Amino acid sequence: MLQLHFGNKNYSSWSMRPWVLLKQAGIPFEEVLVRFDSFAAGSKFKTQLATVSPTGKVPVLVDGDLVVWDTLAIAEYLAEKFPEKHLWPQDAKARAIARSVCAEMHSSFTALRSHCTMNIEARLPDVGALAWRDKPELRADVQRIIEIWSGLLETHKGPMLFGEFSIADAYYAPVCSRIATYALPVPESIKAYIDRVMALPGVAAWVKDAQAEQDFVPFEEPYRLRR
Amino acid sequence: MLQLHFGNKNYSSWSMRPWVLLKQAGIPFEEVLVRFDSFAAGSKFKTQLATVSPTGKVPVLVDGDLVVWDTLAIAEYLAEKFPEKHLWPQDAKARAIARSVCAEMHSSFTALRSHCTMNIEARLPDVGALAWRDKPELRADVQRIIEIWSGLLETHKGPMLFGEFSIADAYYAPVCSRIATYALPVPESIKAYIDRVMALPGVAAWVKDAQAEQDFVPFEEPYRLRR
Repeated sequence: MLQLHFGNKNYSSWSMRPWVLLKQAGIPFEEVLVRFDSFAAGSKFKTQLATVSPTGKVPVLVDGDLVVWDTLAIAEYLAEKFPEKHLWPQDAKARAIARSVCAEMHSSFTALRSHCTMNIEARLPDVGALAWRDKPELRADVQRIIEIWSGLLETHKGPMLFGEFSIADAYYAPVCSRIATYALPVPESIKAYIDRVMALPGVAAWVKDAQAEQDFVPFEEPYRLRR
Repeated sequence: MLQLHFGNKNYSSWSMRPWVLLKQAGIPFEEVLVRFDSFAAGSKFKTQLATVSPTGKVPVLVDGDLVVWDTLAIAEYLAEKFPEKHLWPQDAKARAIARSVCAEMHSSFTALRSHCTMNIEARLPDVGALAWRDKPELRADVQRIIEIWSGLLETHKGPMLFGEFSIADAYYAPVCSRIATYALPVPESIKAYIDRVMALPGVAAWVKDAQAEQDFVPFEEPYRLRR
């Protein structure tokens, strides 16, 4: 059976993407949580992961003797292995756009990612309001995301970015969570898309597990001293 | 005809990847150079690019009314559009690994990328020696690259990372150029792979154009006051 190694569900946004993708697509897999204690050499995290991951990072997908690392490669592998699941849009042009927006997520939005770290169980609207007021680069990131989502929802008529659920929605699910945690201001149509993503069974299952985790990892908590 | 919009050949490592891929695969395309003057809003670069690119970044591939942005999405699009070119390895497992190493390049190696910016025409061995002495994170990046390349060259018996030329070699071509420019110390077998990459007709053509450019862009020149 496929095996997915991932970090804390409350914090690990990269882990969330392939997990949600597998769950939402109904692909069975074994879950292996590698808890964040520290990212230093010799930490439990690095030691446990060293047995499977060449990069020492999560997520990692293991399929028999094959190890696939890095989220985008995992998504492509699953799309190839389960063609009947239509993980990418079926239309070639839509697929090229879907890959573009995923690759953009992969390499961009550093202000959103650094100022609004994923923290599913937390509600930090004041932190979000301060960051929104003081960080123009955060506003630019969110503006670009709104532009991407609005254009796609208009073109494909929703409910997901490319009509039906695809890798692109899994890719942006952690962004939906961040916007909710930090109460970042977005238009109503965008808020409605976020609500639809959060209501997907695959996303809701991850969020439920994250909330049950109740694990406080200080280096993932720039804004809280305790839960 | 396909149209590739890209930045200065001497500096733009992300542009180099799809250009080399197209050239090496013998796929005809129209070249559109968008010269780096500044990345500020209102710059010539941003103004020219705004007509085609939703992100304001290079590279961008235009195919009729379709715009594909971000290097990895461009590579996937070309692999799908030209299946006979075998841009990804044919074996599914090798393909998954190839995608993993490309995705890792996409999101990692920040020390190498920031301390050893691509500058094809320059020779900066002293800058490289100082960075090598003082930046452990640079040494770690190069160590990881050596590990990736060594493993793949051993598994697939060369001459390229997956036997024949693939997207993975195009992806690491700018790394080869950086190692040469900064004379970073690598084992002989790795040096031999770099020489083979630099000798690929597609890479040699890019390098020749870069050397002919003779354009000095100060914000891409952390180590030189003039050519």
